[in-house]
Amino acid sequence: MGKVTTGATMSLDGFIAGPGDTGFELLFQWYGNGDVEIPSASPEVPSIRISAASAELIKPEWQNTGALLVGRHLYDLTNAWGGRHPMDVPTVVLTHKRPENRPEDDENFVFVTEGIEAAIAKAKELAGDKNVGVNGGQMARQCLEAGLLDEVGIELVPVLLGSGTPLFAELGATPVQFEGPITVVEGTGVTHLRYRVKK
Amino acid sequence: MGKVTTGATMSLDGFIAGPGDTGFELLFQWYGNGDVEIPSASPEVPSIRISAASAELIKPEWQNTGALLVGRHLYDLTNAWGGRHPMDVPTVVLTHKRPENRPEDDENFVFVTEGIEAAIAKAKELAGDKNVGVNGGQMARQCLEAGLLDEVGIELVPVLLGSGTPLFAELGATPVQFEGPITVVEGTGVTHLRYRVKK
Repeated sequence: MGKVTTGATMSLDGFIAGPGDTGFELLFQWYGNGDVEIPSASPEVPSIRISAASAELIKPEWQNTGALLVGRHLYDLTNAWGGRHPMDVPTVVLTHKRPENRPEDDENFVFVTEGIEAAIAKAKELAGDKNVGVNGGQMARQCLEAGLLDEVGIELVPVLLGSGTPLFAELGATPVQFEGPITVVEGTGVTHLRYRVKK
Repeated sequence: MGKVTTGATMSLDGFIAGPGDTGFELLFQWYGNGDVEIPSASPEVPSIRISAASAELIKPEWQNTGALLVGRHLYDLTNAWGGRHPMDVPTVVLTHKRPENRPEDDENFVFVTEGIEAAIAKAKELAGDKNVGVNGGQMARQCLEAGLLDEVGIELVPVLLGSGTPLFAELGATPVQFEGPITVVEGTGVTHLRYRVKK
């Protein structure tokens, strides 16, 4: 059985998006500042080119991910990544209401409306022995609060956004302590940190 | 001429204090989880005992600090550290109004009411060839906004506080990009990161 992990690129002041979903060009500079190409399965999202140090960590992490869970906000914001997530895995979308223009689940997207536990269960089923990746601050928070999260990955970038969307937005039961970092890797313009959630 | 640096122990979600000035026992666990004693010059603040890895970084940083600049909030919150700052250096306090129970400046505390530039100038004068350390989120923010800050040090600890006081509270001119980290040191329960402010 794989792990449930969440990862986010975060500003030094703790935001995964600036005010009004801005700041992505600053947060994701490290997606384009290296020599190692990581292909994208999305027709609308270009491949990323990251440093060798980043790639040595990120590439096996992507390869070990068997399914994703994302929230409806991220799904809409990215326009469903043009039809397939860049990581080339099936993506579970937790939503209150299925999008009307996608009546049937397919091999790219599966919609779950019954809450976070059902969404993780579905993603685990799709992932098989591999890991489930959780994306979006609200999804990460819900997983953490429900005790469903095993690891947290932070790609910390040296920028201050001042305000915006926090990593775990509106976290209820604080404080929360993690173990680690179990991994620290310095890329170019990004520090990769991996933490284990205490159970 | 020394550098102007600021340093803060910060939660993984970007807070240097929890709601209502709480959470310090979680933020500062790393002050007590090691074998290397760093003496305190304050009669009310105990010495810290940090890991060898942390001490190798922190000890020379403290020794290279010639004066501190703090805000009135921190000065009051700590009760003036019992009379002398733990780092054993003269401390400039930026305040709107001098405290009535300390009419004269002495070798421990100097009060400045003329604003951030005057406060830094005074601290630099006291520091001589050594560095000036700036403490407290408001002071750090004012220094950054005034272009007076050279380096930022983050002691990142694996805890989520959910809310509280941000590192650079109410930062105006965002986004701000730093260079680095120029140093990454993994202590016990803390990741030490050092960034250079772009000028």
